[in-house]
Amino acid sequence: MQKMSDKISFSSDYTKGAHPSILKRLAETNFEQIDGYGTDPYCKSAAEKIKKLCDAPDADVFFLVGGTQTNQTIIDMLLKPYEGVVAAQTGHVAAHEAGAIEFSGHKVLTLPSIPGDGDCSEDNRGKKAVYSDQVGKIKATDLKALVDTFYADDNHEHMVFPGAVYISHPTEYGTLYSRKELQEISDVCREYHLPLFLDGARLGYGLMSKRTDVTIQDIAKLVDVFYIGGTKVGALFGEAVVFTKGVPVGHPVPIIKQHGALLAKGWLLGLQFDTLFTDNLYMDISKNAIEMAHLLREGLESKGYQMYIDSPTNQQFIVMDDDKLSQLSEHVRYGFWEKPDESHTVIRLATDWATTKEDIDTLMQYL
Amino acid sequence: MQKMSDKISFSSDYTKGAHPSILKRLAETNFEQIDGYGTDPYCKSAAEKIKKLCDAPDADVFFLVGGTQTNQTIIDMLLKPYEGVVAAQTGHVAAHEAGAIEFSGHKVLTLPSIPGDGDCSEDNRGKKAVYSDQVGKIKATDLKALVDTFYADDNHEHMVFPGAVYISHPTEYGTLYSRKELQEISDVCREYHLPLFLDGARLGYGLMSKRTDVTIQDIAKLVDVFYIGGTKVGALFGEAVVFTKGVPVGHPVPIIKQHGALLAKGWLLGLQFDTLFTDNLYMDISKNAIEMAHLLREGLESKGYQMYIDSPTNQQFIVMDDDKLSQLSEHVRYGFWEKPDESHTVIRLATDWATTKEDIDTLMQYL
Amino acid sequence: MQKMSDKISFSSDYTKGAHPSILKRLAETNFEQIDGYGTDPYCKSAAEKIKKLCDAPDADVFFLVGGTQTNQTIIDMLLKPYEGVVAAQTGHVAAHEAGAIEFSGHKVLTLPSIPGDGDCSEDNRGKKAVYSDQVGKIKATDLKALVDTFYADDNHEHMVFPGAVYISHPTEYGTLYSRKELQEISDVCREYHLPLFLDGARLGYGLMSKRTDVTIQDIAKLVDVFYIGGTKVGALFGEAVVFTKGVPVGHPVPIIKQHGALLAKGWLLGLQFDTLFTDNLYMDISKNAIEMAHLLREGLESKGYQMYIDSPTNQQFIVMDDDKLSQLSEHVRYGFWEKPDESHTVIRLATDWATTKEDIDTLMQYL
Amino acid sequence: MQKMSDKISFSSDYTKGAHPSILKRLAETNFEQIDGYGTDPYCKSAAEKIKKLCDAPDADVFFLVGGTQTNQTIIDMLLKPYEGVVAAQTGHVAAHEAGAIEFSGHKVLTLPSIPGDGDCSEDNRGKKAVYSDQVGKIKATDLKALVDTFYADDNHEHMVFPGAVYISHPTEYGTLYSRKELQEISDVCREYHLPLFLDGARLGYGLMSKRTDVTIQDIAKLVDVFYIGGTKVGALFGEAVVFTKGVPVGHPVPIIKQHGALLAKGWLLGLQFDTLFTDNLYMDISKNAIEMAHLLREGLESKGYQMYIDSPTNQQFIVMDDDKLSQLSEHVRYGFWEKPDESHTVIRLATDWATTKEDIDTLMQYL
Repeated sequence: MQKMSDKISFSSDYTKGAHPSILKRLAETNFEQIDGYGTDPYCKSAAEKIKKLCDAPDADVFFLVGGTQTNQTIIDMLLKPYEGVVAAQTGHVAAHEAGAIEFSGHKVLTLPSIPGDGDCSEDNRGKKAVYSDQVGKIKATDLKALVDTFYADDNHEHMVFPGAVYISHPTEYGTLYSRKELQEISDVCREYHLPLFLDGARLGYGLMSKRTDVTIQDIAKLVDVFYIGGTKVGALFGEAVVFTKGVPVGHPVPIIKQHGALLAKGWLLGLQFDTLFTDNLYMDISKNAIEMAHLLREGLESKGYQMYIDSPTNQQFIVMDDDKLSQLSEHVRYGFWEKPDESHTVIRLATDWATTKEDIDTLMQYL
Repeated sequence: MQKMSDKISFSSDYTKGAHPSILKRLAETNFEQIDGYGTDPYCKSAAEKIKKLCDAPDADVFFLVGGTQTNQTIIDMLLKPYEGVVAAQTGHVAAHEAGAIEFSGHKVLTLPSIPGDGDCSEDNRGKKAVYSDQVGKIKATDLKALVDTFYADDNHEHMVFPGAVYISHPTEYGTLYSRKELQEISDVCREYHLPLFLDGARLGYGLMSKRTDVTIQDIAKLVDVFYIGGTKVGALFGEAVVFTKGVPVGHPVPIIKQHGALLAKGWLLGLQFDTLFTDNLYMDISKNAIEMAHLLREGLESKGYQMYIDSPTNQQFIVMDDDKLSQLSEHVRYGFWEKPDESHTVIRLATDWATTKEDIDTLMQYL
Repeated sequence: MQKMSDKISFSSDYTKGAHPSILKRLAETNFEQIDGYGTDPYCKSAAEKIKKLCDAPDADVFFLVGGTQTNQTIIDMLLKPYEGVVAAQTGHVAAHEAGAIEFSGHKVLTLPSIPGDGDCSEDNRGKKAVYSDQVGKIKATDLKALVDTFYADDNHEHMVFPGAVYISHPTEYGTLYSRKELQEISDVCREYHLPLFLDGARLGYGLMSKRTDVTIQDIAKLVDVFYIGGTKVGALFGEAVVFTKGVPVGHPVPIIKQHGALLAKGWLLGLQFDTLFTDNLYMDISKNAIEMAHLLREGLESKGYQMYIDSPTNQQFIVMDDDKLSQLSEHVRYGFWEKPDESHTVIRLATDWATTKEDIDTLMQYL
Repeated sequence: MQKMSDKISFSSDYTKGAHPSILKRLAETNFEQIDGYGTDPYCKSAAEKIKKLCDAPDADVFFLVGGTQTNQTIIDMLLKPYEGVVAAQTGHVAAHEAGAIEFSGHKVLTLPSIPGDGDCSEDNRGKKAVYSDQVGKIKATDLKALVDTFYADDNHEHMVFPGAVYISHPTEYGTLYSRKELQEISDVCREYHLPLFLDGARLGYGLMSKRTDVTIQDIAKLVDVFYIGGTKVGALFGEAVVFTKGVPVGHPVPIIKQHGALLAKGWLLGLQFDTLFTDNLYMDISKNAIEMAHLLREGLESKGYQMYIDSPTNQQFIVMDDDKLSQLSEHVRYGFWEKPDESHTVIRLATDWATTKEDIDTLMQYL
């Protein structure tokens, strides 16, 4: 068999399997005979643990398979046919889901999320983007302005109604909302009866950041629905969806099934999340990624590399000279991000739940 | 019966019925027994006249009922499921169709179309929009950049493919492409195999503008499909769709029917367009709207009103002091456009195929 | 111009324009300046007259353009995403709308509607269909059985939920429900909270039948939404939708627009229905079609023709010997219905609001 | 944690995890760093093995997660917007996918598949269904008749075009097509240019049946696309889609992603199928299910139980007296199938790749 390259990879946080304790439990339960479609005891147990952790005893918890699928299914549940979802222009649902939201009939109404882009203030003039920890985030004031402008328009019945708000935390750029910012966005959502949906594909890496004041309980309180990412945080696959204020549809199962998101052996999801939410495992392994990201960043800065974005989580973005990058690519797999100019490239290096100090050391010797 | 207000109306170009010669022919043919769904001799005759005028003998012509319906149906015919349509951010399909494009599964990929908005060059800094005859238009260079950026992205299979290009001519702001600009956009489309679709809801008013070098033959040559607006130019309703390079689907009838766009008595459309394209009627009545718009504009400028956009067609946009506007609204119906600041309002005044010199005189005495 | 054939046509009830009083009012109001999208006084007036006639003062009335468009829009308003509409296997939405219901995401759940088809009782054995006035109708008992079977299935969350019921009156075969039958269907719908939708594309011809005990007030009381067909009953085009128990969506306008069903010059619809519902015109012209159908049927039976279906309305179905049909087709246009065997054809002959005694006499001389 | 019941389960063939050799390889490869979305060496290796086995070197192979998702995605790839898929009335896509096909815009056009149901011949009169090995199958003659009838209809442009054909093998009732029957269906499909899609969710159990003459090479030759079920045949999850005559869309990845079917860690699928198609594992474990089903059936017949359907695969359907069933349910989990009358129930007992002789013995003592 053709082998994967021997290069060390920091290209993303979904290049490895699962935490060994998950594999162990899969093996232990392999010949139990378990009912399908999420009706099993493992899903129930995992849901209970998550609800307890979130301090949300009345929440409803579902387990779906992957991120785009989860975003599409939840947003379709939240919206009426004439409504769109408000999101950052850089949000995953706006930019990187192959039109999955539009496929289910809804427009993504975008807000600016790159400081300096389209911002003609003295500081930002002429810059494509600025080094910042705000990239990828929306602002409560922009959200309010969008909704107000919509309702102020005499012809708004001929336009797409803002029907829900999507944010990611961490964002696609590794940045984080503060509790105050989340509160402000939540306040606007409540004022206009817009359900707020938080995409937590990398939630653990946000919660364990050293520069956050946002807890999972805060999130459960401030949003209407969020999901706890498993695929990128220690599971083989799976995302745990938490509706904290009630499920917006009478029958979620057929809707989930129509979106291709109902796993026959649903217990595989329950079992994984039950393991991740036992003995603080999810948080512990998330913390590892953060610590490795700090090592990485310190190493980069000590060698004089220029960070592109000020990310407090597991994804780090570096402006590389193309010659230097060409050398690096002989030993390291990385994520291409963008070309800020002819001779430089922004790359992403991601740590994860399983990154080791040795991995960082290996990487450093090539940088 | 409650009456329509006695105020004179310049609020839009679809407030009146049809040219009297259309009503006459409807009466004359009322008891003929005619086959349905566009298979009748009137549709055939109208199609022949349009093909001859366009110098496009191999074109395929369909008659649909209204604008949004036509945009949605054509775009759905042009696109594969994973493709979106590129349009100006101010394009009708992007902004004012209640999500009809997304309803049929497709994203609208937007290009900037307001000079000064997000443009940090010396001239435009800090302005929301600039007085210009470019508002509402896309640029060939922006289009090319969007497509190049898409294909340059390693992950573009996870993004929405640009699959067709939508432009309106005149635009929603009354502005026009030059022949050179159309040629450039067409060239980019050909290079990337993107069908080019021109929304001509107000096509007559564009063709008869005193500041255009674009003919209907140019359009037929440079685009893949366009429509000739009837609703706003002398018909009771109806839009004539012209595919100049072949129909992109094997069976257009069921697709038209699925979009709610197949009129049982299709001859009502054929008859109207047959009348409009007999003895140059469509162009003559379009010319009237242009002449009345010139009278209107001269009157406005002589009274010192500030035009908001430099429109060479039948829609004129004026910056009004709110106090003055309050007086005007007692006598005149106008279109609200936007609020540039707290004490001013931009309004639209539209002339049409039936506007008379007396109408303009009446309006002027209130301004 | 190529002419329509000179043959007299009984092929359908949508081959002529509109009642002359509609054309007259179109001409009279042609240069009024009227607000768009159904916000005008004519729509309001027509709605008031319809509500009064229906004895349904709290009803909501909308005017759409055509039948398939109306069926698709209403059914999409009634259903949740995981629901389908129950209809006769021969219902227009099941059989002749090019998949418009599925295009908007919903399954049509069918009930038997052809006596003898799949019915192994002594009488019907071996017959494809039986001469009957029941063809095209559903039965309350079959509806109840379908819903009961659905809910009795342990796995019904993996199936399509019955979410609304569609019936046509007259049916596509010209047959009619009795008041008792409508009441029984309505009772099942109420029991299971299924909204009942009656397609009245030919409603006038049903109400004026000499063999009906169903009034428009009965319909308004027993169903949740129905429409009064204009296209086939004296209007150029248009269907008046009556929601008698409230509109099921918060914002109908964007939903109507997404379905391509929002006419810019909405007053054209209001004006036509206002005319039809002034001085009993709709009922009077419907009655004419019924009287002409009786003349036709009497003539056919006196000449020994075999009726295929026992239709009490304006559509008559006749079993023709193919040789005889070949002669007829030189003088008369008719609707092909089906081939019951190698040497016979079932044809449809339809009278309408404008059929004259002379038309029937002309037809008879060819039969 | 609440435990799964201790009862032995024959309720379905997806109640257990995966063949141990799959778990072993997951553990072995857990910390390899592997590229996502199916671009990895394991997917390539599995695809090569499958293509070789199928004697189809030019086939294209994709790995998706589950059955409904796979059916929906493939059918949406095969069909144009105005086309529907032809299937048995009992087919999974027609009956048990929560409207997933309609959700993506397509009608399911059904053919009869229950002998005796709607069949008024002497033998079947009055029976709901007959004991038969034909239940769940479509007939080439019925398929041809449906297509011929469609094209013979003058108005077929107003109907749903038959655009592809779906069959399952084994069917939902455990029955199998013969090679001759498959050939005949394939011939009709070729004649009318209809792609033929075979749902092989339980393919192994069909191939290893003692009463089949159909090989996987036959299938690859006779159909346009099929899938090899993993979920029910030894994998944790996953279905291997094989397009034998070319992929019908230019870009499958975004279409798969829009259907929620693109797994980030695609190698998890490749690895499982690579294991199943190494050393004949897939066939060997499928054979086990067949042998256990034979033991089961012999036991049932020796005890005088009445089989409901003559199934030659791993699903067995038994008519149970309700009193007897009530006793059985204290010890055994089974699948409820239907209620043929007031005092009997049809149940399904399914064996699988991991069923043991001891399991059968245990079951037998309760029967």
